[in-house]
Amino acid sequence: MIKVTIFNEFVHEKKEESVKKVYPEGIHIALKNALQSDDITVRTATTETIKEDLSAEVLADTDVLIWWGHMAHESVPDEVATAVMREVQKGMGAIFLHSAHHSKPFKLLMGTPCNLTWREDGDSELVWVCNPSHPIAEGIGRFIHLEHEETYGEPFSIPEPDELVFIGSFSGGEVMRAGCCYKRGNGKIFYFQPGHETFPTFKDEKIIKVIKNAVYWAKPTYRAELICPQVKKPLEDL
Amino acid sequence: MIKVTIFNEFVHEKKEESVKKVYPEGIHIALKNALQSDDITVRTATTETIKEDLSAEVLADTDVLIWWGHMAHESVPDEVATAVMREVQKGMGAIFLHSAHHSKPFKLLMGTPCNLTWREDGDSELVWVCNPSHPIAEGIGRFIHLEHEETYGEPFSIPEPDELVFIGSFSGGEVMRAGCCYKRGNGKIFYFQPGHETFPTFKDEKIIKVIKNAVYWAKPTYRAELICPQVKKPLEDL
Amino acid sequence: MIKVTIFNEFVHEKKEESVKKVYPEGIHIALKNALQSDDITVRTATTETIKEDLSAEVLADTDVLIWWGHMAHESVPDEVATAVMREVQKGMGAIFLHSAHHSKPFKLLMGTPCNLTWREDGDSELVWVCNPSHPIAEGIGRFIHLEHEETYGEPFSIPEPDELVFIGSFSGGEVMRAGCCYKRGNGKIFYFQPGHETFPTFKDEKIIKVIKNAVYWAKPTYRAELICPQVKKPLEDL
Amino acid sequence: MIKVTIFNEFVHEKKEESVKKVYPEGIHIALKNALQSDDITVRTATTETIKEDLSAEVLADTDVLIWWGHMAHESVPDEVATAVMREVQKGMGAIFLHSAHHSKPFKLLMGTPCNLTWREDGDSELVWVCNPSHPIAEGIGRFIHLEHEETYGEPFSIPEPDELVFIGSFSGGEVMRAGCCYKRGNGKIFYFQPGHETFPTFKDEKIIKVIKNAVYWAKPTYRAELICPQVKKPLEDL
Repeated sequence: MIKVTIFNEFVHEKKEESVKKVYPEGIHIALKNALQSDDITVRTATTETIKEDLSAEVLADTDVLIWWGHMAHESVPDEVATAVMREVQKGMGAIFLHSAHHSKPFKLLMGTPCNLTWREDGDSELVWVCNPSHPIAEGIGRFIHLEHEETYGEPFSIPEPDELVFIGSFSGGEVMRAGCCYKRGNGKIFYFQPGHETFPTFKDEKIIKVIKNAVYWAKPTYRAELICPQVKKPLEDL
Repeated sequence: MIKVTIFNEFVHEKKEESVKKVYPEGIHIALKNALQSDDITVRTATTETIKEDLSAEVLADTDVLIWWGHMAHESVPDEVATAVMREVQKGMGAIFLHSAHHSKPFKLLMGTPCNLTWREDGDSELVWVCNPSHPIAEGIGRFIHLEHEETYGEPFSIPEPDELVFIGSFSGGEVMRAGCCYKRGNGKIFYFQPGHETFPTFKDEKIIKVIKNAVYWAKPTYRAELICPQVKKPLEDL
Repeated sequence: MIKVTIFNEFVHEKKEESVKKVYPEGIHIALKNALQSDDITVRTATTETIKEDLSAEVLADTDVLIWWGHMAHESVPDEVATAVMREVQKGMGAIFLHSAHHSKPFKLLMGTPCNLTWREDGDSELVWVCNPSHPIAEGIGRFIHLEHEETYGEPFSIPEPDELVFIGSFSGGEVMRAGCCYKRGNGKIFYFQPGHETFPTFKDEKIIKVIKNAVYWAKPTYRAELICPQVKKPLEDL
Repeated sequence: MIKVTIFNEFVHEKKEESVKKVYPEGIHIALKNALQSDDITVRTATTETIKEDLSAEVLADTDVLIWWGHMAHESVPDEVATAVMREVQKGMGAIFLHSAHHSKPFKLLMGTPCNLTWREDGDSELVWVCNPSHPIAEGIGRFIHLEHEETYGEPFSIPEPDELVFIGSFSGGEVMRAGCCYKRGNGKIFYFQPGHETFPTFKDEKIIKVIKNAVYWAKPTYRAELICPQVKKPLEDL
């Protein structure tokens, strides 16, 4: 059983009618309903309950953390962001969705500003598979077609990805590295670009398939504190 | 003075009126005229003269080799392809343009089929800079706009590039990793996707700027046979 | 059930008494006996039977190919080496052991000479884990200690590995990137440095554990010919 | 003229007789004297003057920052560490020496704990070149021999380096990725392991050559704030 925790800031859905219509219970509940299954169990956390629901205990008991945030990035306590970074370094998997490119834990893990260009014009997007044998692309075919998405464009100031799985192209002409894999310490990280709050992206079957694939991919097989020990003799066992 | 050698198979330009109109003297001469300058000297080679003009001596005396080929890939002698690969491994720079993704030396250096999808519909292309501080992107701005290009699309079966500098998007919707950097042995390699024979791509100022930037980037600073010596004592100098 | 095929050139063991003593039935049989289990089934091939035992059919039916070769690299037919390369590109996993750094298929897949420095002085080796959460390092601890190994040293002329799992250090002072991961096309490749024919390296429990781990890691989850199709419309399904 | 700023915490040299003997004026002055030349100008900063000498103005006017720190990592103000990270992201080069693997700005840029194993036994070290054509290895030959160094060993919890230039081996048997290149945003980063305060490592000619090479390599060719602009139309110029 894979233990997934979904953090969604859950602000847009309460404030904006256009978002409430798409995700009446919040993005976290939409994702939870889509992901939970015989081998995936899901907890959720939101801005209001972040200290309890992303406590050290919850993170230590989480296999893969999924993060959606946008207008409330600053309200995430620094100590939660740092705790997420440390838990990834120990081995927890992490999936950052859409505007989470600017979330505190993602920026801490990348060491770069993670900026990009953007437009809100309701462009359509094609999310192309550029690495068809990557486990995260399994079952997706050549591309995902989204009728409407927020336009994100290069340059996206991230470290060169370990593996690039998707590239998005928008009807306005922009392109974006849309599916990026990293390893930091013992943990695997996946950034996935689609998922604007005003569009039903997380109801698209292929988008859910990608996120599910990423959960299986990011699940830790090894989890341990990284240490910096003084050894007494060269070949001492630790 | 940087010594550039341009190989162009020079077949389309002689056979097809539509190509002859764009490049009456051949792609190699168009590139030669555009690149040669106070610090770049240019030689050329074509299918008919490949054995002499890409001889071991010429390759050894070449800083950066530029390669354009398409319908005559098979007519390149295996020993020339192998000699190019070996010279790159020693330190010669190499720039592969457009359909040279399927040239013998590029495939030898990549170890992959280098396949992609393609359409010939006269799409327009935007070549986006995704790594603005890379020396090959210097002076390009956000993108290059080409009114017409052959459409190349992912999946492009290459090894994960060491650095990705450009991503192309086509008016039909396809995307393509359009500027890819590799190091193999001591040599630097740049693959650049634009350059279909029926369009005046190599007359575009920004395209020429990219190729010139790539010449400076790929120029060897160190050139030596890679060897596999038996050493007599651990710290023997070689 | 994972289908493993082991190719061992099987020449040293028949010609040299010192090798025969260590591997009386050949390295391939020692490895076969060590690897076969409830979920791994093993076939073998040697120089004499290579055309039949590494036929296109066998390769297409192999999940992971293990390769040991040294003095008979040249006797491997070019078409077998090319067929191995192509099958890896389609998705077959491949593990190259020790002197297989100079085997034809490894060099074809790398695009580099794969040279290194070497000494045969019976040094001891420590194979250090530098990526403890990589699945190939599972269960190994800090290092593997080998009483005697052939000394291999840098510079090892390979492309920068996608992931470096082990670094070897020898009692004479040399170092060597000893466990290197690559992906080429759909296939995963692991190079592992230990395994000289005169030492019982392949009887070491941890060495066998690494190779077994690598079999699980390299096993294909997706296998398909990489193609280069002309598409008729941008979003055509292939 | 390349503008180098050297930060040295300058604590050991004042407190410990054994260090004072080796670097009576401090590591920063030893490095300054060794590096300054016709085309390199050097400023220095220490713990006591860090706010002025690593002010925003100084950083903005620095081409390459060199950092040595150990026991006083915590005394570096968070805002200075963050300012260094941001300036690297804009394009400033950065060289982190020895125990600076645990400095605040290096950890911010890596996103990992940067832990390692260590012993203080006066081992000798061989720093092997594994990428002989990398500009940072120019003129070094096969290796650097240091009579005494602090022993640093794997696992070193860093992101997979973009390029690995050196691997160190110690007389006790440990190995360490000793020269690691990264790009983060527009800036180049080099980590170099040798340089313990009690040994005259920074008086070794080859060590100085490596640091000088790294200064030339890390010098920015492009420097700009990375931004996250909303664009009004797809192809708007920024």
